[in-house]
Amino acid sequence: MTSSKRRPSIGVFDSGFGGLTVLKELIAQYPDADYHYFGDTARLPYGSKSVETVAKYAVEASHFLENRGANLLVIACNTATALALDRITNAAHVPVIGVVEPGADQASAASKNRRVIVVGTEATVASHAYKKALEAHGVEVKEKACPLLVPLVEEGWVEHPVTQEVARIYLNEAFADGFRDADVLVLGCTHYPLIKPVLRKAAPDHVAIVDSAHSTASVVARQLRDHTRPTPVPSASPTATGLRFFATDSVEKFRRLGPRFLGHPVESVEHVDLKE
Amino acid sequence: MTSSKRRPSIGVFDSGFGGLTVLKELIAQYPDADYHYFGDTARLPYGSKSVETVAKYAVEASHFLENRGANLLVIACNTATALALDRITNAAHVPVIGVVEPGADQASAASKNRRVIVVGTEATVASHAYKKALEAHGVEVKEKACPLLVPLVEEGWVEHPVTQEVARIYLNEAFADGFRDADVLVLGCTHYPLIKPVLRKAAPDHVAIVDSAHSTASVVARQLRDHTRPTPVPSASPTATGLRFFATDSVEKFRRLGPRFLGHPVESVEHVDLKE
Repeated sequence: MTSSKRRPSIGVFDSGFGGLTVLKELIAQYPDADYHYFGDTARLPYGSKSVETVAKYAVEASHFLENRGANLLVIACNTATALALDRITNAAHVPVIGVVEPGADQASAASKNRRVIVVGTEATVASHAYKKALEAHGVEVKEKACPLLVPLVEEGWVEHPVTQEVARIYLNEAFADGFRDADVLVLGCTHYPLIKPVLRKAAPDHVAIVDSAHSTASVVARQLRDHTRPTPVPSASPTATGLRFFATDSVEKFRRLGPRFLGHPVESVEHVDLKE
Repeated sequence: MTSSKRRPSIGVFDSGFGGLTVLKELIAQYPDADYHYFGDTARLPYGSKSVETVAKYAVEASHFLENRGANLLVIACNTATALALDRITNAAHVPVIGVVEPGADQASAASKNRRVIVVGTEATVASHAYKKALEAHGVEVKEKACPLLVPLVEEGWVEHPVTQEVARIYLNEAFADGFRDADVLVLGCTHYPLIKPVLRKAAPDHVAIVDSAHSTASVVARQLRDHTRPTPVPSASPTATGLRFFATDSVEKFRRLGPRFLGHPVESVEHVDLKE
């Protein structure tokens, strides 16, 4: 009954807490793995920074996770994926999966009208990573930066009238002109799953929402199942997995905010100094 | 008619753009100086980070400005002042002036009721730097973290209904209980001068607003006048001063956003890599 291959060790990387929504999905879809999560909280957010800076930080984080034994890297950060996936892949010695391609693939599969709206941070939108990935599928894309949504989630205003109003303003601007009939909304930021109900309400009724965190976890789980025999028996609880957390800023803050994104307690967090 | 002392060279430091409101006041109050402004934009914001991280970044920035010839350092960042002024002062070889003490002094002078509200970032509030400084004057203090105001300013929503609503919520929570009759509101964040009209409207009518950026510039200008004879003749325009800008992230973004805070164009910005 034991697997012929060793239990996979997955390194999950984000600038902060948002990637925990990807980790949550990974644990749900593939619990029989060790997960090392690295949050670069001393340098977050990446969403407003340049490609050079983001690439440098992301490569450092990837090296850290490889050095901890990761045999697969998940870049659970839309900005880092959008700006630096090539650089990370070139610098890594193990397979790397980002969040953009899986989200774009699922959005393309879901869109009947072939018109899709992508919401994300300023940097993700400026990179046009989703636009390029979706246009390769023959889908027309409008990208909309929503820089206030991350701070609103971090303030904990996930059902607040202000958040509803901000979402309404952003999505009204997005679903306009030639994109009134866009039928898919891609959540191109790992913070956004926490306000999915608010975005659902602010978007036109006919729109399907694609959550990149969920799409990415599906791709990773499929890849793991294809390369690990026999198919692991899912564990009952995420605590059954080997979960470790690393953060470059305060571990106390990580323990406090992490559970909002992960959906269950964050036990032990280790502080990491990347020797800046 | 020439000064007997050399023209002062002032190093002004902030995590990003907010400190430009202090620089704007400095130029207005003491135009006859060279100003080197350093924005640590690759690692902003400091407001949500730990004391260790902020102190490390701030000391690096101070060294950079000293190496550029600064003979006075202005820490134009409430978070860095609140968390790391002692560490910066110990590490520096020139005088250092932060934004907390000047703001607290002016607030104390303005408060008849001896009850003051201070608004700022999460980290500034958690440090209780304003509370300590004001309590030393015998003033009762309530500090209120307003983490959404910086992103709203950076989104450019400086007169937006959402910003008015957020300000109203925050200030209603602040001017409550034993602090309904507080008569001074301290803007303990260098972004807040840009939404001073909104905060003015959201605060009770009897309240005086103290802007730390303005208070700090007054202290610096007084110190420069006391140590530089004869008193310089103010130049007509800020462009008459020697102004240089340094940023750790995109210089293009700095040129684009800087003018919102400085109130006039930001000509040349140099990129700096602090060799992380």
